[in-house]
Amino acid sequence: MLGVVLAIGLLEALGGKRLPFGIEVIGFSEEEGVRFNTPFIGSRALVGRVDEELLNVRDAQGTSVRQAIEQFGLNPRDVPAAVLKDDTLGYLEFHIEQGPVLEELGRPLGAVEAIAGQARMELTFIGRANHSGTTPMHLRRDAIAGAAEWIVEVEKEALRIIGLTATVGKFDAKPGATNVIAGEVHLSLDLRHSLDDVRAGAEKTMLRAAAEIAGRRGLSVRHSVQLTQRAAKMDSAFVRHAEEAIRSAGCQPHKMVSGAGHDAMILAEKVPAAMIFLRTPGGVSHNPAETVNVEDVAKAVEAGLHFLDLLASSPISQRSAHSA
Amino acid sequence: MLGVVLAIGLLEALGGKRLPFGIEVIGFSEEEGVRFNTPFIGSRALVGRVDEELLNVRDAQGTSVRQAIEQFGLNPRDVPAAVLKDDTLGYLEFHIEQGPVLEELGRPLGAVEAIAGQARMELTFIGRANHSGTTPMHLRRDAIAGAAEWIVEVEKEALRIIGLTATVGKFDAKPGATNVIAGEVHLSLDLRHSLDDVRAGAEKTMLRAAAEIAGRRGLSVRHSVQLTQRAAKMDSAFVRHAEEAIRSAGCQPHKMVSGAGHDAMILAEKVPAAMIFLRTPGGVSHNPAETVNVEDVAKAVEAGLHFLDLLASSPISQRSAHSA
Repeated sequence: MLGVVLAIGLLEALGGKRLPFGIEVIGFSEEEGVRFNTPFIGSRALVGRVDEELLNVRDAQGTSVRQAIEQFGLNPRDVPAAVLKDDTLGYLEFHIEQGPVLEELGRPLGAVEAIAGQARMELTFIGRANHSGTTPMHLRRDAIAGAAEWIVEVEKEALRIIGLTATVGKFDAKPGATNVIAGEVHLSLDLRHSLDDVRAGAEKTMLRAAAEIAGRRGLSVRHSVQLTQRAAKMDSAFVRHAEEAIRSAGCQPHKMVSGAGHDAMILAEKVPAAMIFLRTPGGVSHNPAETVNVEDVAKAVEAGLHFLDLLASSPISQRSAHSA
Repeated sequence: MLGVVLAIGLLEALGGKRLPFGIEVIGFSEEEGVRFNTPFIGSRALVGRVDEELLNVRDAQGTSVRQAIEQFGLNPRDVPAAVLKDDTLGYLEFHIEQGPVLEELGRPLGAVEAIAGQARMELTFIGRANHSGTTPMHLRRDAIAGAAEWIVEVEKEALRIIGLTATVGKFDAKPGATNVIAGEVHLSLDLRHSLDDVRAGAEKTMLRAAAEIAGRRGLSVRHSVQLTQRAAKMDSAFVRHAEEAIRSAGCQPHKMVSGAGHDAMILAEKVPAAMIFLRTPGGVSHNPAETVNVEDVAKAVEAGLHFLDLLASSPISQRSAHSA
């Protein structure tokens, strides 16, 4: 809720001051995309990307997006009216960093210059389940051992490429018994980088390593791509404004790449967009312990006011601005 | 059932021939120990190791071993009568290999010279669950990456030591989501070798590696030992008889270590014991596809007859022999 409440607080802090552009505060639905297993439904509406296919996606109970909109008392046919007009000045989003970087640097606020592109895939290593005591080491086709060797390679590659993150977060082994060599491992790979080419290159290297390791060990390996999302550059003028606004609020700005996806990534398809990150205590996110420091929120509101001033005095400010 | 049916078939094949010792065929209960999570209950009775503690062990439904014996119509107080008399000549067990070694060598039968000792333990690597996109590689405490590095080390060590098997067969990662760095991995280690000192040394090396890897990565690691079972040497005279009997049946014998536990291991505490292994097609065991070649069973019966002849002509054969 921070991004929505902070934007409302920012308007309040304006104290009735008139600006040369209009401001709308938007609370997006389904940014995480948990209910329909599809993220960014709200922000897609603003850029004209809520199509028939998306309206027909169903949740676990079989309710479609279309039905959910109707059950809420709205008309799905009105969705196109949400599309931003072409004279929109831009979009600014406040969000917690959801990571440890600002805290490590001791800085309350960051200016996001790009949102990393990402690829999510699943790999399955298949070997042969067998008795742990009666199968000599050299006659094994151990799916866990193969997967482990690959994970070590994935991590090495990620450490070699600046700005790349590579995560194996899911690891299911079958049959999963102490005295049985695993015949199958199903795992996930999450790859992110602000440059799509770099990410694609790392993906290729890692998949090649999987094939090489599997081949050498008598395993087979297959993979399927769940999601590919291109990196999104934030608007350079907006990012400069954000940095200057943070500095004016008395903080040292940190220009950074967001590893997580955000609605700003979708808005950037259509209008100049930027984000201001707030430091995340302990770097903890998607967790009941996720929080912010109250003083950092105050600094963010102050930076927001400076941002609006900078925008008001910039030559392109004769249009309307959006903030979520 | 092979071990029991083969022993009965062997007696039939004797065709009424008189031997200078008595033979009993035993069908042991609970060798695997699935019901009471305690193996070798039947064979423990023969060596006097079914104590009060074992009789009180309960199955998943809350039925104790004592109650199960009563419900079957027997009296638990009669169990001590099953203990083998001191003049017992010895024990011979037929069993499928449950592994790929004899098949790889193209030999139908093997003579078991020892049953490997084993240690089973569980390890938990604890790091910190965090966002896969927003946590840079160098600020991670990734439990899966740490566990993977350790598994690679475990395999290296096992390949270095002849006859050692080391298996990580269970691997559970939490929270287990594509976009979350794993905060915890719970895994198993199964270690076996025919020499207890070698096994204990490998265990020490592997646990030291786990501590080193965890320390370097900001993880913590703890372990608990589920089972330690000493190796059991088969009787050398019986093993020689088994080898000679296999040769007399027209097969090239292979002297081998059993990686799996068997009732013979328990019997060996009290009487001379040996085992004859039958080749296992595809090395497949503990699986509905587990089977034997009929011709190999015929060879095993033939070898069994030669074994009985050798025993009959040996100087110690004036007593009674057991076979299961």
